[in-house]
Amino acid sequence: MNIKPQKGMQEYLPDAAAQRDRLMSLILETYTRCGFTRIYTPAVESAENLDKSDGGDNLNLIFKILKRGEKLEAALAKTPVDEKELCDLGLRYDLTLPLSRYYANNRNSLPNPFKCIQIDKVYRAERPQRGRLREFVQCDIDILGSDSICSEIELISVTAKALGKIGIGAFTVRVNDRRILRDSLKTMGFPEDTLDTVSVTFDKLDKIGADGVAEELREKQMPETAIEKLGELLKAGTITLDAMEGYCSEDAKPIIASLRTIIETSDKLSGSYSVIYDPSLVRGQGYYTGTVFEVASENFGGTVAGGGRYDGLIGRFTGENVPAVGFSIGFERIFSIVTENNISLAGSRKKTAILYKEEDILDAIARSAELEESADVTLVLVPNPKKADKIYTRTKNAGFDEIIKMY
Amino acid sequence: MNIKPQKGMQEYLPDAAAQRDRLMSLILETYTRCGFTRIYTPAVESAENLDKSDGGDNLNLIFKILKRGEKLEAALAKTPVDEKELCDLGLRYDLTLPLSRYYANNRNSLPNPFKCIQIDKVYRAERPQRGRLREFVQCDIDILGSDSICSEIELISVTAKALGKIGIGAFTVRVNDRRILRDSLKTMGFPEDTLDTVSVTFDKLDKIGADGVAEELREKQMPETAIEKLGELLKAGTITLDAMEGYCSEDAKPIIASLRTIIETSDKLSGSYSVIYDPSLVRGQGYYTGTVFEVASENFGGTVAGGGRYDGLIGRFTGENVPAVGFSIGFERIFSIVTENNISLAGSRKKTAILYKEEDILDAIARSAELEESADVTLVLVPNPKKADKIYTRTKNAGFDEIIKMY
Repeated sequence: MNIKPQKGMQEYLPDAAAQRDRLMSLILETYTRCGFTRIYTPAVESAENLDKSDGGDNLNLIFKILKRGEKLEAALAKTPVDEKELCDLGLRYDLTLPLSRYYANNRNSLPNPFKCIQIDKVYRAERPQRGRLREFVQCDIDILGSDSICSEIELISVTAKALGKIGIGAFTVRVNDRRILRDSLKTMGFPEDTLDTVSVTFDKLDKIGADGVAEELREKQMPETAIEKLGELLKAGTITLDAMEGYCSEDAKPIIASLRTIIETSDKLSGSYSVIYDPSLVRGQGYYTGTVFEVASENFGGTVAGGGRYDGLIGRFTGENVPAVGFSIGFERIFSIVTENNISLAGSRKKTAILYKEEDILDAIARSAELEESADVTLVLVPNPKKADKIYTRTKNAGFDEIIKMY
Repeated sequence: MNIKPQKGMQEYLPDAAAQRDRLMSLILETYTRCGFTRIYTPAVESAENLDKSDGGDNLNLIFKILKRGEKLEAALAKTPVDEKELCDLGLRYDLTLPLSRYYANNRNSLPNPFKCIQIDKVYRAERPQRGRLREFVQCDIDILGSDSICSEIELISVTAKALGKIGIGAFTVRVNDRRILRDSLKTMGFPEDTLDTVSVTFDKLDKIGADGVAEELREKQMPETAIEKLGELLKAGTITLDAMEGYCSEDAKPIIASLRTIIETSDKLSGSYSVIYDPSLVRGQGYYTGTVFEVASENFGGTVAGGGRYDGLIGRFTGENVPAVGFSIGFERIFSIVTENNISLAGSRKKTAILYKEEDILDAIARSAELEESADVTLVLVPNPKKADKIYTRTKNAGFDEIIKMY
């Protein structure tokens, strides 16, 4: 039998598992104290719901579960066998689709708005590479049922509080609204059906510069007047929300005003981190409809959290739109930062070992019970006196804070 | 899109989810304080390992995961399509097989003996009925690498401590060793190849009585002298270990002596529960090799925990036998007892709601931060003054311990 875990499926030794538990507890406790409540949804969803969920590239990474019994026989009886008929269940690839289904199913039993936490495993058939697992944990908070920008402000504040408690150092929260970028590009004269591809080029601004952006848009045969308008905006260097406003239509004004309030209010609350406008931020998921946000770690690089507003997703289940916004901490990214940089988390307890002989087990268990309020107490059997020294040395090397000999 | 969870897949509303978390924390904390360490293993294992794992009836309940890409195309290209070639992964049906593989893979990095905790989800394609879920949580502790009966005594004591803290009332720990029952039946004259079917009949003693047992064994055409010998043993009513010893061979004497020590020592440690010999206890899994145990709740009926020694399972991975013994709390059974009987668990915190107007969000978040050491503080937006009374009433009815109005 094969002793290795399957590709992309991670297992954790005791120290790593304890660190994961401390990290999850810290995030869960922060979220709970801020009035969010945890829920549990199943890891297995219907294949149909998963396929229809507008999850972008993730839809190609779904693990499907084979039908059983008569249903499987019927699917196999056809010639040729149709792959799509072999499965009616699959493993979830994120926590947002299960939450939307859950909310649709239970909305009459839930408070309105509903502020919830999900910390749980998801599955994606990624090509395994550094940091890409096929089974991994996501930590989401969501506010369902409110279209107020107070939801965005609260999510940013609570997510940042959790990241602050973990202690990954400085970070920046970047915020945008997808509708502003689209409106400005359209107002500049880019045709409506090219806005996605123009956004992709615009997002490369950091890497290829203003000239590179213009060049790529010319290659894509965009109208010259629109490219020049965009060039004007880019000339200023950092693009402020005020500058952006000058290139938008009247329709975008209220959206810009809301985004300005979100950013300014969140920044006032921030203390040790900053909240800034990022005109090119889009995020991958097709289901986002408005505000999007991301957290970038300054010391360790990369995105450590991301989210946005998805006002349309629940409506696919209920038929009526329910406003919804969520923020997800990238648990595995944070875990690797904490592990690789030896960041110590609260929650470790003193470790004591009691070495005892077989005939003294009653006394050893009684002694262990006395100590366990203040320490994690392991019983270590010394099966015969000849082995006592060896077992003492081995126990000492295992990193116990205290060793009690009962022989 | 379908809003219901899939068959046998349970989702949990906030109160139930909080209760599950309290229950898991309580069990985890008890186990950790007693020196067991948590590990994580993946939910997805190779289909081959699962199929070869000697898990009894559970092998018919495995959810298999469809192959992908070229591998799937190759399997579908054959005529007829071979069901077995469609999948090379599956969802685990218990935590013992993954633990055995994990131990085989990591044994050089683990302490010896290794005392570990697994609290995690498993999957079985059960026909859904009351209490039978297809995704459910198991809570296991295991001691790997020691053949001392101190392992059995420690597992019984620690499992009973966890059950005591949960507060499900009185319970009894029933203990047996599979080898004693087999040895006695063989010594009485039942043929070796009938011992399994005779054990099945013997296990019905409580229901059908001594006469019923004899009758069923006659129907199974067992030797009359053996049936009479068994009748003698059963005449006494309660079968003690001493009585059983009179019907065993010399080979069984050391096994009986060990079992007696396990029971007597565990009973001395017990305090509020009793530890008794149950001559007919067998348990279903094929991989058990010696001691088996179960916990029966006296107030709520049924088995709430079970386990045993499985000295052969790890050897299937490593080629050399590693002694191993485990005890598993039936989390879902305990959860339903706790829920149905309103048993309150430690860990609830005061719940406070702050009602605020949109323009006061900065003050509301600041106020919330001041209070969160002592309470879980939810912010509730009052979008306009006309709705204030309605929102106050709704919040009050939602069961908050305190409501603070900021308008």
